[in-house]
Amino acid sequence: MSDLKAYLKGQQVLVDDALNRFLPRVTVRPKTVHQGMRYSVFAGGKRLRPILTLAAAEACGGELKNALPPACSVEIMHTYSLVHDDLPSMDDDDLRRGRPTSHKVYGEGMAVLIGDALLTEAFTILAETPATKRYDLKDILLEFSVCGGSRKLIGGQVLDLEGEGKELSKAQLVRIHENKTAALLTTSLRLGGMTANATPRQFDALTDFGYNLGLAFQVIDDILDVTQSTEQLGKTAGKDEAVDKATYPSILGLNKSKKEAARLTRKALEALTVFGLRGKRLEEIAHYLLDREF
Amino acid sequence: MSDLKAYLKGQQVLVDDALNRFLPRVTVRPKTVHQGMRYSVFAGGKRLRPILTLAAAEACGGELKNALPPACSVEIMHTYSLVHDDLPSMDDDDLRRGRPTSHKVYGEGMAVLIGDALLTEAFTILAETPATKRYDLKDILLEFSVCGGSRKLIGGQVLDLEGEGKELSKAQLVRIHENKTAALLTTSLRLGGMTANATPRQFDALTDFGYNLGLAFQVIDDILDVTQSTEQLGKTAGKDEAVDKATYPSILGLNKSKKEAARLTRKALEALTVFGLRGKRLEEIAHYLLDREF
Repeated sequence: MSDLKAYLKGQQVLVDDALNRFLPRVTVRPKTVHQGMRYSVFAGGKRLRPILTLAAAEACGGELKNALPPACSVEIMHTYSLVHDDLPSMDDDDLRRGRPTSHKVYGEGMAVLIGDALLTEAFTILAETPATKRYDLKDILLEFSVCGGSRKLIGGQVLDLEGEGKELSKAQLVRIHENKTAALLTTSLRLGGMTANATPRQFDALTDFGYNLGLAFQVIDDILDVTQSTEQLGKTAGKDEAVDKATYPSILGLNKSKKEAARLTRKALEALTVFGLRGKRLEEIAHYLLDREF
Repeated sequence: MSDLKAYLKGQQVLVDDALNRFLPRVTVRPKTVHQGMRYSVFAGGKRLRPILTLAAAEACGGELKNALPPACSVEIMHTYSLVHDDLPSMDDDDLRRGRPTSHKVYGEGMAVLIGDALLTEAFTILAETPATKRYDLKDILLEFSVCGGSRKLIGGQVLDLEGEGKELSKAQLVRIHENKTAALLTTSLRLGGMTANATPRQFDALTDFGYNLGLAFQVIDDILDVTQSTEQLGKTAGKDEAVDKATYPSILGLNKSKKEAARLTRKALEALTVFGLRGKRLEEIAHYLLDREF
C-alpha cells in the first residue's frame, strides 16, 4: 500500500469512528429512522469531503480533533443530498455504491425523512466545532448553511433537474457543477481551515483549490459514467446518456473533457503553493483524484 | 377587533416583514426554488410559532428585534415540515391553507428540494440570532437542530407514518404529538426566552407551557378535523378518519378529547405564573388557541 493509500485509509477510519460517535445509535427510538441514517452514512463511501476538511486543517497548522465535527457534518450533508437525489421523483436510482438506495430499502416517504434527519443532524454535529480567533460559530454555521442552501448545493440540483433532457451550454453545465459539486468540496476545505484559524490568504487558497478540484472531479465523474461498467462504478453506469443528461463528454467530447479535467487540476494545484510543505497531502489527494482510471 | 386580535395581527405583520427580508428574492437564480420557498412560506399561515417566540422574549423582558431571527427560523422549519409531510409518499395532501400544495404546483422532486432549501435557510437565518450572557450561539443552534431532528420533529413524523392504519394506545399517540407538535412550539418559546437571557426558572416555565400548549393544540386540531368542513379548515377535512389515522377523538371519543384539551391548557396556564404581568400575552394566546370553535 502506498503512503497515500495508507493515509487515506487511516483518515477514513478516523472519520468513520467520529461519525459512529456523533450519529444516534440504532437503538434510539424511532429505530427505523436511525437505522436508515446509518444505512446511508455507512455505505462504504470514500469520505473524500471529510478527508479534505482534515487535510485543510493540517495544511493551515491546525489540530485534527477540532476539524472532526465539521468533517462529519460535510459528509452527512453529502449523504443526505444523495438520499434525496436518488428518490424516484428525482434521479430515480436503485443502486448506490453497489447497494439498494434508501427508498428501495425503507420506502419513499421514509427516505425523504431519513434525508431530512441527516441534514438536521449535520447541524447538531457542526455545533461542536470549536471557534478560533478569526472564526466564530456564526462564521462556521453560515459557511455550512449557505453552501447547503438554495443558491448552491440545492440550487445546483434544481438546475440539474430542470436541465434534464435539454441541450445545455458549457457555461450552464459548469454552473450546475459549481453548485452541485464544487461548492461542498470548497466548504469542506474552508471549514477545515477555519478550525485551524486560517489566515485570509490561506482561506482564499483553499477556496481556489476547492473550486478547481470540484469541477475537475465532476468532469472525471462524467467521463467515468461513459467509460466504466456498473460493476466498476458501484452504481448504474451509462445513466447520464440513458436519461439524456448533459455532461462534459456529451458537450465537449471525451478527449476535450479529459484535457479539461487536467487543466482544472493544474489550477487547483497552483493554489496550494501558499501552504509550502504542509500542503503536500492536499496535493497528493488532488493527484489521486485526477489519476483515477478512465 | 379585540386587543388580542389586533396584537396577533400586528405581530403577524412584523413576522411577515422579517420573513420577507430574510428569504432570498424570487429573482435569485435558480428562480423556481426561490419562488417555491416563498409560495409555501407566504401561504397565509397564522404565524403562531414565531408569535410565541416574540411573546416569550417579551415575557422574559427581552427585545423583539433580537427574537426575530429565531422567530423566522421556527416558522420556516414548520413550513418545510408541511411541504414534506404533504408529499404523495407521505400524507398525500393536495390542499394546504386552501391552496394547492407545493408538489401540486412545482412537481414532486422540486417539492422535496423546496423543503430541503427551507430547512437549510432556517439555519442561515438562525445564525443572525444575537447571543446573550446565558446563551451563546451554540446553545441556540442545538436547541433548534435537536428539536428539528430524528428524535423529535422528524421522529414524530416517522411514528406518525408508521402508525397509519394501526391501532395506537393513548400513550403512543401522545408520543407522536409530543414530537410532531409540542417540541417545535416549546423550542419556539425557548428560543425567544434565550434571546431575552431568560433565567433558568423562566426557561423551565416556557418549557412546561410549550409542552402542554402543544399537546392541547394537537388535541384541538384532531377535534376540528372531525367537526369542521374542508372550507372552514382550509385543508381537506375528515382526512384522519378517511386514512384510518389514530387521533384523540378516535381513541378517547369527542367529549373526553375536549376535556383533555381543557386540562392541558390549564396546566399550560399554570406554568405562566412565574412571569406575572409580563406573561399576559402568552396567557391570552393560550386562551385564543383553546377557545377555537369546535
